[in-house]
Amino acid sequence: MIVDLTDEQAREALPCKWGAVEPGVVPAWVAEMDFALAEPIVEAVTAAVRRGTAGYPPFGDLGVGAALTGFADRHWSWSPPADASVVVGDVIAGIRIALEVLCPPGPVVVPLPCYPPFRDIVTLTGRELVHVTVDPDTEDQDAAALDLQQVEEAFAAGARTLLLCNPHNPLGRVPRRDELEALATLAQQYGARVVADEIHGPLVLPGATFTPYLEVDPTGILVTSHSKTFNTAGLHTAQVVVLDEAEQSALRAIPLPQNHAYSPLGMIAAVTAWTDCDDWHAALVTRLTEQRTLLAQLLETHLPKARMRPLEATYLPWVDLRDYGLEDPAAAGLEHGVRVAAGQAYQPGLAGHVRLNTATTPLRLEQMVERLAAAVAGSRP
Amino acid sequence: MIVDLTDEQAREALPCKWGAVEPGVVPAWVAEMDFALAEPIVEAVTAAVRRGTAGYPPFGDLGVGAALTGFADRHWSWSPPADASVVVGDVIAGIRIALEVLCPPGPVVVPLPCYPPFRDIVTLTGRELVHVTVDPDTEDQDAAALDLQQVEEAFAAGARTLLLCNPHNPLGRVPRRDELEALATLAQQYGARVVADEIHGPLVLPGATFTPYLEVDPTGILVTSHSKTFNTAGLHTAQVVVLDEAEQSALRAIPLPQNHAYSPLGMIAAVTAWTDCDDWHAALVTRLTEQRTLLAQLLETHLPKARMRPLEATYLPWVDLRDYGLEDPAAAGLEHGVRVAAGQAYQPGLAGHVRLNTATTPLRLEQMVERLAAAVAGSRP
Ligand SMILES: Cc1ncc(COP(=O)(O)O)c(C=O)c1O
Ligand SMILES: Cc1ncc(COP(=O)(O)O)c(C=O)c1O
Repeated sequence: MIVDLTDEQAREALPCKWGAVEPGVVPAWVAEMDFALAEPIVEAVTAAVRRGTAGYPPFGDLGVGAALTGFADRHWSWSPPADASVVVGDVIAGIRIALEVLCPPGPVVVPLPCYPPFRDIVTLTGRELVHVTVDPDTEDQDAAALDLQQVEEAFAAGARTLLLCNPHNPLGRVPRRDELEALATLAQQYGARVVADEIHGPLVLPGATFTPYLEVDPTGILVTSHSKTFNTAGLHTAQVVVLDEAEQSALRAIPLPQNHAYSPLGMIAAVTAWTDCDDWHAALVTRLTEQRTLLAQLLETHLPKARMRPLEATYLPWVDLRDYGLEDPAAAGLEHGVRVAAGQAYQPGLAGHVRLNTATTPLRLEQMVERLAAAVAGSRP
Repeated sequence: MIVDLTDEQAREALPCKWGAVEPGVVPAWVAEMDFALAEPIVEAVTAAVRRGTAGYPPFGDLGVGAALTGFADRHWSWSPPADASVVVGDVIAGIRIALEVLCPPGPVVVPLPCYPPFRDIVTLTGRELVHVTVDPDTEDQDAAALDLQQVEEAFAAGARTLLLCNPHNPLGRVPRRDELEALATLAQQYGARVVADEIHGPLVLPGATFTPYLEVDPTGILVTSHSKTFNTAGLHTAQVVVLDEAEQSALRAIPLPQNHAYSPLGMIAAVTAWTDCDDWHAALVTRLTEQRTLLAQLLETHLPKARMRPLEATYLPWVDLRDYGLEDPAAAGLEHGVRVAAGQAYQPGLAGHVRLNTATTPLRLEQMVERLAAAVAGSRP
């Protein structure tokens, strides 16, 4: 059911991921998957284009909100009202709108490492950035949890918004329910808002349990999209979900130029993805789980000094290569035929980390790890 | 070559324009055309979706800049360098980026009437709005020209940017070259920047001559898209063109979240539209010219007291119905089975004007005017 793209096909299909590398280099950086689109999405979108649907999006949401409710109910036993969802262009556009329209003034807490645009978007809205960090050296496997003491200090010092990534990119971790509850309690105590980016929610792998943040905090702001799970980021449809009706109205009332980036094709893809692609989604999770197993074997064989916390979600493992002594293993990798993402992009100043991308064939995953191993070989810890 | 959509087809293809009206009502408000897409665009976009192209856009522009250069050269004998073009999500997003990144601080001049989002976008960027207006009562046919004296007063009072709509929506007028030259001189004198929205440039009808603003002012900022001419606004690709290389670099260097709304499908559509659709474009201009002739006849027959300056460009005639004595003829029209755009949306406080949309079948145009006539009948001047 998951159809692998050949190099040639992938180069045509994914001009960002593959266009950034010379032929022969394995691209394992940006969060896109080397798989064909789910057939129902291809059918729905091409049929729409043939009908002439390339113009302005409809009033109303074409059923995108209800479709998310269905998916959330089937997969997480969570049923937000369909009306709680407002369509936006992208997750990042949705976070911008949440900050501009819903969040109280004051600094914004962004835990590090983070998806790099999180920092830009805070700056772009004129807010001050406050970072809380995870110590990569603790032995505790669960040390990638949010440091709630740092969060509380930030709230006490005036921060009033926190950007939560649930599940976390790049840590690949699924926050525990009790941890989210503790965060919700803190937010309530300080009148702070949590903006929860849950774009990776459907990519939780067997062994972990996803908790939608709004289940533990009804004042939370959910921003999500089908786009990461179904490889459709370029179709531009994401969703902001808030439970308060006045806030839903406020979002629907913002002037067009502040929320105009969504597309009817993306909305059609969203409805199809959330409604008709459970089989494809199940096959994807199976494949990503197999790739996770293969990655563990490959690291043990070729990069035994790599350290990695369990990959609970996403296809984006965060690998600590500091024991190989290279400041920037991603740069070295590029010279050995693999492009991975450099850790510094996710946490400025953090040396020796990379983010991989396992959403590809087993062969390319093998090449990825072997080439990275060749790149770091010879350097001393 | 121009294929008309039936009501049923149009309702499926154009969910914004047609979804806003009950069955039986003629929608003549938003700027979309009731025509099938150009076949080369359908082919290119559906082929891309079948290949799996739904993800992030490529680095580089896929040839969008060069394609615009080709179109501009063939149609207007103007050849901006291909590198002068930077892809953005929409014209409105491009104007926002131009204001945020390129324009000096200070108030922004927006001539009225104007495309309504112009006002929102200025406010959204935190700039002050300054309006200059056209007196609708002057007998001079060319009084819809920019009032350069008002513009000079605004610059003298501190404004440093002007949003030019060339050709003009909703006036349907093509600014003359000497008028643009005079504006350029004023801008230079005050160190002001002109942002020229030329999305309607390819929709100049026989009798008028289009002058690309950058031809008379190399410091101008062009924002344009194939999307209005080819009915593809929902695919989200527009272009900002600046001739200064440092400014091109500045635009290319802005963080992703500030310019992330364009899509690979839109870029493919743009290249196809600018390159392979000259025949379709010629057929469109012919059809719109026929509709212009028909409109004149219909107004003479059914709405003899309507006043209209010559429609030199666009399919969006601006009609002065004040002699029929209704404050809001658009509201009356809606009760008689036609939805046109209300003049107040383009110039707050301006009574008795409507904007029509002729990009449809002759039959629907006839119904549009007849129903509008029925709506205003009976009221006294
Ligand atoms: C956590 C997170 N949020 C958002 C995005 C991007 O979403 P969008 O393209 O909808 O802005 C990504 C992409 O990888 C991501 O990892
Ligand atoms: C003058 C003008 N600019 C911009 C637009 C919209 O462009 P976009 O959808 O690319 O923002 C329109 C749409 O009618 C328009 O008339």
